[in-house]
Amino acid sequence: MSALINTPLIDHHMHGVMKPPLGPAEVEGILSESSRPPPAGCSNFHKPIGLAVRRECAPVLGLPALIEAEAYQARRAELGQEEVSRRLLTAANVAAWGIDTGMSADRVASPEAMDALSGSPGFHVPRIEYLVEGLAQQSDGPAALVDGIGPMLESTVDQTQAIALKSIIAYRTTFRINQSPPDRATALAAADRWMSRCEANGTWRLDEVDLNRFALWAGAALCRDRNLPLQLHSGLGDTDVYMHACDPSHFTDFYRVMEDWQVPVTLLHNYPFIREAAWLSEVFQTVYYDCGFIVNFAGPSYRRIVQEAFEYGPFYKQLYSSDAYGLPELHYLGAVLFRREMAAILDQWIAEGWCTARDAEAIAADVGWRNAARIYPPALSAPVSGDLSDPGGSIPGVGP
Amino acid sequence: MSALINTPLIDHHMHGVMKPPLGPAEVEGILSESSRPPPAGCSNFHKPIGLAVRRECAPVLGLPALIEAEAYQARRAELGQEEVSRRLLTAANVAAWGIDTGMSADRVASPEAMDALSGSPGFHVPRIEYLVEGLAQQSDGPAALVDGIGPMLESTVDQTQAIALKSIIAYRTTFRINQSPPDRATALAAADRWMSRCEANGTWRLDEVDLNRFALWAGAALCRDRNLPLQLHSGLGDTDVYMHACDPSHFTDFYRVMEDWQVPVTLLHNYPFIREAAWLSEVFQTVYYDCGFIVNFAGPSYRRIVQEAFEYGPFYKQLYSSDAYGLPELHYLGAVLFRREMAAILDQWIAEGWCTARDAEAIAADVGWRNAARIYPPALSAPVSGDLSDPGGSIPGVGP
Amino acid sequence: MSALINTPLIDHHMHGVMKPPLGPAEVEGILSESSRPPPAGCSNFHKPIGLAVRRECAPVLGLPALIEAEAYQARRAELGQEEVSRRLLTAANVAAWGIDTGMSADRVASPEAMDALSGSPGFHVPRIEYLVEGLAQQSDGPAALVDGIGPMLESTVDQTQAIALKSIIAYRTTFRINQSPPDRATALAAADRWMSRCEANGTWRLDEVDLNRFALWAGAALCRDRNLPLQLHSGLGDTDVYMHACDPSHFTDFYRVMEDWQVPVTLLHNYPFIREAAWLSEVFQTVYYDCGFIVNFAGPSYRRIVQEAFEYGPFYKQLYSSDAYGLPELHYLGAVLFRREMAAILDQWIAEGWCTARDAEAIAADVGWRNAARIYPPALSAPVSGDLSDPGGSIPGVGP
Repeated sequence: MSALINTPLIDHHMHGVMKPPLGPAEVEGILSESSRPPPAGCSNFHKPIGLAVRRECAPVLGLPALIEAEAYQARRAELGQEEVSRRLLTAANVAAWGIDTGMSADRVASPEAMDALSGSPGFHVPRIEYLVEGLAQQSDGPAALVDGIGPMLESTVDQTQAIALKSIIAYRTTFRINQSPPDRATALAAADRWMSRCEANGTWRLDEVDLNRFALWAGAALCRDRNLPLQLHSGLGDTDVYMHACDPSHFTDFYRVMEDWQVPVTLLHNYPFIREAAWLSEVFQTVYYDCGFIVNFAGPSYRRIVQEAFEYGPFYKQLYSSDAYGLPELHYLGAVLFRREMAAILDQWIAEGWCTARDAEAIAADVGWRNAARIYPPALSAPVSGDLSDPGGSIPGVGP
Repeated sequence: MSALINTPLIDHHMHGVMKPPLGPAEVEGILSESSRPPPAGCSNFHKPIGLAVRRECAPVLGLPALIEAEAYQARRAELGQEEVSRRLLTAANVAAWGIDTGMSADRVASPEAMDALSGSPGFHVPRIEYLVEGLAQQSDGPAALVDGIGPMLESTVDQTQAIALKSIIAYRTTFRINQSPPDRATALAAADRWMSRCEANGTWRLDEVDLNRFALWAGAALCRDRNLPLQLHSGLGDTDVYMHACDPSHFTDFYRVMEDWQVPVTLLHNYPFIREAAWLSEVFQTVYYDCGFIVNFAGPSYRRIVQEAFEYGPFYKQLYSSDAYGLPELHYLGAVLFRREMAAILDQWIAEGWCTARDAEAIAADVGWRNAARIYPPALSAPVSGDLSDPGGSIPGVGP
Repeated sequence: MSALINTPLIDHHMHGVMKPPLGPAEVEGILSESSRPPPAGCSNFHKPIGLAVRRECAPVLGLPALIEAEAYQARRAELGQEEVSRRLLTAANVAAWGIDTGMSADRVASPEAMDALSGSPGFHVPRIEYLVEGLAQQSDGPAALVDGIGPMLESTVDQTQAIALKSIIAYRTTFRINQSPPDRATALAAADRWMSRCEANGTWRLDEVDLNRFALWAGAALCRDRNLPLQLHSGLGDTDVYMHACDPSHFTDFYRVMEDWQVPVTLLHNYPFIREAAWLSEVFQTVYYDCGFIVNFAGPSYRRIVQEAFEYGPFYKQLYSSDAYGLPELHYLGAVLFRREMAAILDQWIAEGWCTARDAEAIAADVGWRNAARIYPPALSAPVSGDLSDPGGSIPGVGP
């Protein structure tokens, strides 16, 4: 395989690893999007991703490839979550991380901790819905909430030096909604309904469509003003998702305005709508896409996924993400599998006369990190681009 | 190819073969989901499945592979439907059959007849909609129908020793419906409307959504009480289908309750939503899936279909079915093609270091028969698992 | 590669090339479905289709394959759009063209001009919506418009010796509409609303659903009466498209009537719904499909697209189209890539024993031109079939 395998990667969307300690049952649980364990007698290791962990991650922990799950878990427990994270995150050789800080925030490593574990800088990507849920619990009524959302997002971005905002509105309301910004009265009425409901049942989950829309538009306006991308969950998720309605092609009215506003919208995951996402990135000037999550979960079939991501989308629109959560195995797998197949695709294109070696280098660099460098604040890509001071004197993300 | 090719198969969902006699026009007609013949001058053999029949089935009837359709039909007529069925069903080497008994019930072989023809036991899978249509024609008014559905399903299951119930609600109402159980008054009103309509036009086709829902929930409750799976038609079908609305990801509210009830839901066919089905099987503890029907109809492209079925779903969730109907060619093709590609996939995974030989054996056995053995009554898998008395002394479904 | 590569092709759906002159910025612009340029610093050549143009078309213009985009553009400018068109259209070696004359009609070559440039006959396929927009601007009120649509379509078909009509109703209203024919009063009310709107804003874009339906049915009735196919845009397009609702499986109520009327409906493009389109062609007697447009735009991944088109659809139902617009590169690429992969698929099927050489020839001929010959007027296929006088004495579309 060519030197393309050493293309620097920016993982523009992922989550922190779990804080230690982390027991075997939790490890296995994270290898699934289900809210329940597998049927009795079955194991989450008995899935494509289980094969990938045993094949690719075991050697990084000093074990032979394909060791049985029990032995893998034993070794993992022996090393401990922190050491396992240090090894796998370092081995991932990712130049920088864009970290969603709004999921199980108290249980996972902060961007700063990710930085320390991996040796690569971690950046904040605040999640709009999580922040609004937090604000609501401190707000004195609907008006305070509605009027507080914009300032709260703004101060969060400033305080965390966020490189983007993220919305999971597809999860909460689907993409089949009125996509225009609601006026204040509509938002107030929604906030009133929602807060009453939350106070009654004691849980604060933002799923009141007019308030979700209001928060999304507040975030989008802030992205416009601060020149930040807006990350949008798209496609598959857990059982909360009405997946057919999370096809990103349902949300074109919104992209049209983001194009006017020149806000980059990065469609995350997208499976099984990768083709739809690539098409959207072709027709909307500021829409981007990745194929995170499913590359890991397809295990031995990861090649087909990456090939599909390279089928139609402009080379200046695809991004890399692992969408890893909790287990550093996932951060590592994402990088290893994506790099390997991107290099394999491009090597094949060179061999078959579909592109020159120089084309291939440009494609790999764009998808691997330069597209992210173009749309995110310079800090994210500084380790690779050298635009800012290079912390280590050499180029992180490029193997020896 | 490795010994994986000899993995026992349980065909958990199919239909009986046509009773003899069966003429050439009927044979050709069954090679299609259309209600009309091909355009003038065209033949259903001039399709991917036609190539598959000529390639794979001709030798079983003593003909050279790829013999022309006319000669194939002549040989078929010479042998007769019963002998053709005997040869192809035996050659399919399937350990057991789960037989939908609710489609053209008077024209196809009964489970008992399938047993005699194939040498492998056939089990009843009553179809809810068919049974309700039959009951309605004997019922003295809507109340008798509504109140009779539960007892009728119960007695059918008991009398036939059914291993599952099947619903084709997607066909009749799509999956885009209110998925909660209707109350009795709602069901009564629907039954009243529907019976009046049927009496007026003389056909009894259950397509009154509130009554369909009522019947589905009655079937689901019986499955819960008797520990039986519920088979659900999903994805492609004939011209009655609004295919986009038969995407199984539209039916998550129902799966959520089935998970609570611990009722296995087996999503049948699924094409072109195999990825959606695999995802559902990953996130819902009791959802299962297969890729029946399309493997046969894709002919030379069958490999891509099976590969897609192995892309993301847990190995403990995929099932094998042929969805064969009417022609024993389809029962045979399903088994031959699925076995061959499952073995090819796993052999490749072994060769590329994605799994051990032991992993591959476990995956093949689970998908081929053990997942079915886990969720269906023991009788279905007795020929393979040996849990019950083995009728033949050796293990059916395993070739020499 | 076998002689299958020389199978004659009828390109049943495409558009004219741009009239000269054509500058580099316009050339690059046409390599996209977007209404905006790529982000600053990015080029439409940095996409899969850019690689395809540089690889396949450069040699036809006397340049080495994979020459840089700038040099390609310089050579293009040197030769001029007319000479470039002459070279590439001739090299495409297409027997006949079915030309949508309703898009940028004043900027692209007419069917007669395409004939002169390519040496192969070009036939008119009038676009219903374009014609209605033109008629409206000359009509004295809604009644004149509504009552004029039928006669206008009829005279257009007669005057142009049209081989089909085309509708882009999916673009304008999606396929998620009431698919029955509206009565005159409904159409009149719609025409009144629409004309008022158009007069107010000065643009005439047919997007008033009841009037779109009326025009579609008028066109369909004319197709029935004149024995012509109706071409339907399906699937991907530009930013106007609500792509999920352009899944052709939403339009089954309409196909059902077209089947009764024996009007061939040719589903165009279809991506990412090629599987849905193939299924529709399997179940509806008069539905046909192609995979035009995306074969070109997938560049190095074109093989997967064509393979998908051959996955399930009857061999008597698939058609060839390039859906090329504006750049003769696209007419050439479509033919080269489709021919190459169709031959590769069939050669592989022969090698693996999936079909005989004779089967392969029949499949290639049917998909390449005979299916079009069956459903379109004889003039379209005369150059290949010899049904009419052969203008050149030899068989166009067959290479040496």
